[in-house]
Amino acid sequence: MHDYRFPQLLDVKQAYQRIMAYIHHTPILTSEAIEKMADCQLYFKCENLQKVGAFKARGATNAILKLPPELKQNGVATHSSGNHAAALARAAFETGTTAYIVMPSNAPAIKKAAVKSYGGKIIECEPNLKARETTLEKVVEETGAAFIPPYDYMDVIEGQATCALEMWDEGIPFDAIITPVGGGGLLAGTALTTHYISPRTEVYGAEPKGADDAQRSFKAKEIIPMENPSTIADGLLTSLGQRNFILISKHVKDILTVTDEEIIAAMRLVFERMKLVIEPSSAVPLAAVLANKGLFRNKKVGIIISGGNVDVSKLPFQ
Amino acid sequence: MHDYRFPQLLDVKQAYQRIMAYIHHTPILTSEAIEKMADCQLYFKCENLQKVGAFKARGATNAILKLPPELKQNGVATHSSGNHAAALARAAFETGTTAYIVMPSNAPAIKKAAVKSYGGKIIECEPNLKARETTLEKVVEETGAAFIPPYDYMDVIEGQATCALEMWDEGIPFDAIITPVGGGGLLAGTALTTHYISPRTEVYGAEPKGADDAQRSFKAKEIIPMENPSTIADGLLTSLGQRNFILISKHVKDILTVTDEEIIAAMRLVFERMKLVIEPSSAVPLAAVLANKGLFRNKKVGIIISGGNVDVSKLPFQ
Repeated sequence: MHDYRFPQLLDVKQAYQRIMAYIHHTPILTSEAIEKMADCQLYFKCENLQKVGAFKARGATNAILKLPPELKQNGVATHSSGNHAAALARAAFETGTTAYIVMPSNAPAIKKAAVKSYGGKIIECEPNLKARETTLEKVVEETGAAFIPPYDYMDVIEGQATCALEMWDEGIPFDAIITPVGGGGLLAGTALTTHYISPRTEVYGAEPKGADDAQRSFKAKEIIPMENPSTIADGLLTSLGQRNFILISKHVKDILTVTDEEIIAAMRLVFERMKLVIEPSSAVPLAAVLANKGLFRNKKVGIIISGGNVDVSKLPFQ
Repeated sequence: MHDYRFPQLLDVKQAYQRIMAYIHHTPILTSEAIEKMADCQLYFKCENLQKVGAFKARGATNAILKLPPELKQNGVATHSSGNHAAALARAAFETGTTAYIVMPSNAPAIKKAAVKSYGGKIIECEPNLKARETTLEKVVEETGAAFIPPYDYMDVIEGQATCALEMWDEGIPFDAIITPVGGGGLLAGTALTTHYISPRTEVYGAEPKGADDAQRSFKAKEIIPMENPSTIADGLLTSLGQRNFILISKHVKDILTVTDEEIIAAMRLVFERMKLVIEPSSAVPLAAVLANKGLFRNKKVGIIISGGNVDVSKLPFQ
């Protein structure tokens, strides 16, 4: 068992007050054309329009702002080559501290550039998990920086939970809300907030068939890490975190999986019909709705578009 | 001279009340990254997120709703292969009448599909202006449909003017507002509304150097039609309308021009930094701001993103 103290609704509301000056209140957009195809009402929460182009800005900012001053002054550190790295670098810059980001030496130049553009200090390491972890340990030891993990960390989950809080503040009586699930920060936070505000609402996770550890863990009732994930949804390669798994087991209705073909088709729909640039991971929930019409028919369904960081010169529908 | 009666502020407000149930109130979005590059504050009014993916939904809806019932019952007609065609077809469908759209036989399949998806009836003609006009005349004669021109028509200009009305309702004290200019419906409407609400605010038009009839007409103080326009901004090939020219001459500060290279670079910036799908025409105002920093330094500048109808499998930055 565990002895975690999970955030209460008041904690999530306080997190929102804490971070709101540093993040965008993102819009909810709709599309008649896609609704017709899906046979339900769809409300797209556009975190691709969030700072750093992803919901990760919420958790990273909340985590830094909750650090005691004596910890914060030495900076923060993480290992990541994705949206959490850029989000932590920006949040550190905006709140007056330093971010040390351990990145594999083969990380894409565009990801390194994003971290640097926010003043983050990059420490390169060999491209494997062992090297990442030992390099991070060394950085933390040398600098005294506080480690902020990308998802398996309470203040990060609490920050991601503010996204659903904004959704519920719009007054829409969602029957269901679906988010992508990788490490599980967004899904756990969304399920937690929704559990407090509207327990009747069903929260779903959606993930690629080629990285379906969340579905398998959910069914097995224990974490089954992903080995050799393979999918175009590069934001969803990680396995579920401990805290995330507990919350998801408790408050999530089900985990749906889709093929890469379905992801690309849904991604194209959002580009063409909604005029939004989204990364493949963000198309996974819509793909899941379109592949499971019976589950959602005539319901009011909230979909969190998690991010928009994709190389627009290499889109998969060229 | 002319004896046109141009819309008053009350007319624009009434147009907004008339059409608001049929259109989106589009958001204004911002980007720190682009503001840093431009040395000014930028407010992007996102008409790419409008119904049919373009501001044209406003004018077309207003024009149909203002038709007397005896005219409206026979339907509406226009010749266009662009956003006005889809906008008129949708507005006709939503308001319970029929749209007859004369399109050149070589119009892209995607444009025809858009018109058909809204129930519009397509009448094909030879791909030249003469054939378009005679075919339209024939359609109007046979059906009794009312001709709704794409921009040189008062109720269309009045409808486009509601876009700036929404912008001013946000309470932002714009120093300048810039729109693309093709036929001049959006620019004329924006200039008119802004003249009434904030006469100190400077309104600019922006167009491609390869289709610079608005700039030349503006300088010459008479309409100089464009011959053989050549630009990637396919929405801005048309020459200024009469009514549009009069309003623009009176209420617009200046017309700025940019190269196709500048348009493509600005378009890519909006995709990458704002996560928005926009058509090349919509990137023209941002390109003009970046090419004329002295004009806008430290000012609050509103930019209307006019539309998002672009083939996402053939983007110019692949």
